[in-house]
Amino acid sequence: MKKNERISVITKILSDHPNEVFSYNYFTELLDAGKSSVCEDMAIVKNAIELTGTGYIETYAGASGGVVYHPKVTKAEEGAILKEIADQLQAPSRKIQGGFVYYSDILSNPRYSKNIGRIIASKYDEMDIEYVVTTETKGIPAAMETAHYLNVPMGLIRRSNRVTEGATTSVNYISGSSNKIKTMYLSRRIDLKDKKVLVIDDFMKGGGTAKGMTSLMEEVGAKVMGICVIFVTRSPAEKLVEDFTALIWMDDENMEAGLRVSLYSEV
Amino acid sequence: MKKNERISVITKILSDHPNEVFSYNYFTELLDAGKSSVCEDMAIVKNAIELTGTGYIETYAGASGGVVYHPKVTKAEEGAILKEIADQLQAPSRKIQGGFVYYSDILSNPRYSKNIGRIIASKYDEMDIEYVVTTETKGIPAAMETAHYLNVPMGLIRRSNRVTEGATTSVNYISGSSNKIKTMYLSRRIDLKDKKVLVIDDFMKGGGTAKGMTSLMEEVGAKVMGICVIFVTRSPAEKLVEDFTALIWMDDENMEAGLRVSLYSEV
Repeated sequence: MKKNERISVITKILSDHPNEVFSYNYFTELLDAGKSSVCEDMAIVKNAIELTGTGYIETYAGASGGVVYHPKVTKAEEGAILKEIADQLQAPSRKIQGGFVYYSDILSNPRYSKNIGRIIASKYDEMDIEYVVTTETKGIPAAMETAHYLNVPMGLIRRSNRVTEGATTSVNYISGSSNKIKTMYLSRRIDLKDKKVLVIDDFMKGGGTAKGMTSLMEEVGAKVMGICVIFVTRSPAEKLVEDFTALIWMDDENMEAGLRVSLYSEV
Repeated sequence: MKKNERISVITKILSDHPNEVFSYNYFTELLDAGKSSVCEDMAIVKNAIELTGTGYIETYAGASGGVVYHPKVTKAEEGAILKEIADQLQAPSRKIQGGFVYYSDILSNPRYSKNIGRIIASKYDEMDIEYVVTTETKGIPAAMETAHYLNVPMGLIRRSNRVTEGATTSVNYISGSSNKIKTMYLSRRIDLKDKKVLVIDDFMKGGGTAKGMTSLMEEVGAKVMGICVIFVTRSPAEKLVEDFTALIWMDDENMEAGLRVSLYSEV
């Protein structure tokens, strides 16, 4: 294979498998090339990836040397992505009776969910996350993409007890939007004991769901390394969880004139 | 930028944006290179991508020339991916009382959902699909990845009527597993009129859910171009929908001795 082709193949493989460690031997065998050639190729790919602003390549030297692609989002790109979403949110046509804003289509669009996943993964890349967990339904695509970029599995918390999940662990929580006591369930087949977990949810108002999720994580012995929520309302200012990252803040006091939002990157 | 770096950058951009058409001008400006250089680069990327077996590059000649990356899965790779999933399914520990098999963790693993999405997109790549639709919950990750590879949005059908979806269109259907009449809902803000739609579901036994989804698509004026289901049980042999593609067939008669499965690629 020619050098140029090797560079394209290496770029494709690393880019498709973020946060996965590949040994140099893997590439020398796959590409039928010497180690020094692969090292040279890698230096070029490293430069190029950094030029695209989509992440960086980390290389480990030595006999057991390897290489891993870390997806990253620059502050400028993050601002641009979140602003595009915020601009859409502010359209008056998105208002739903009861003070809600329609955003299911945004989170169900691969373009947005992939970018949101990359933003979240970028923030938690250094924390050795072992599992992403989320609660059904709307946040699943973004949580799944985060799991992809962090190269970990996703654990799905259900809002009702399904026979297909087998035995479950459950906790009760107070849903802020309906002010009712509800229950959430995690299959006991998902073993989170002592696992470093990132909790993701699409929306927070009072923080009841996020609080429920952290209780459930305690219950199964997981270590919550962070809570990241995509849309968070400014009011109430007091949330049931203290430590969380919000990507987009919604000012809902002024719904008649359209929603006002502010972005993580502006905070 | 050097030629080698340009090739890496082009590979990354095309690979990250499947089924999206890029003009040559886009690359000449981004890379600050002449059109003939970009054309040469493209020929190399085209070769390399085909060598990885993950798809092919289509180029359009002429003044308005452009380039698009189509993800593809070879028959051999498809067989290997589906066999890996099937092998996991057959583990006796996956059996759940009531004759069910636990597979949530498989579909919540980005490794599997991405590959399943790529397999499905590969099958429907030539049909000009404009929307992927699925019903919550377990199939969402694979449907989302299919939508990503086809470069279209996903429409999410809900099993209960949520205030956050606004006004909805609903149909009743008979759920095969519970033999009860249920209702499914699609937000009226998702406009599928005259749209070419691919219906995806994670599991089919009698075909009630798939039938419900096609009725709902008729109701909103969409054109169903195909139904693709990940796991389908052999019995009952008669399903409520006639035309569908199953990736993995489950022989459930012999559950005591472990599940027997057969793959799409073997059919």
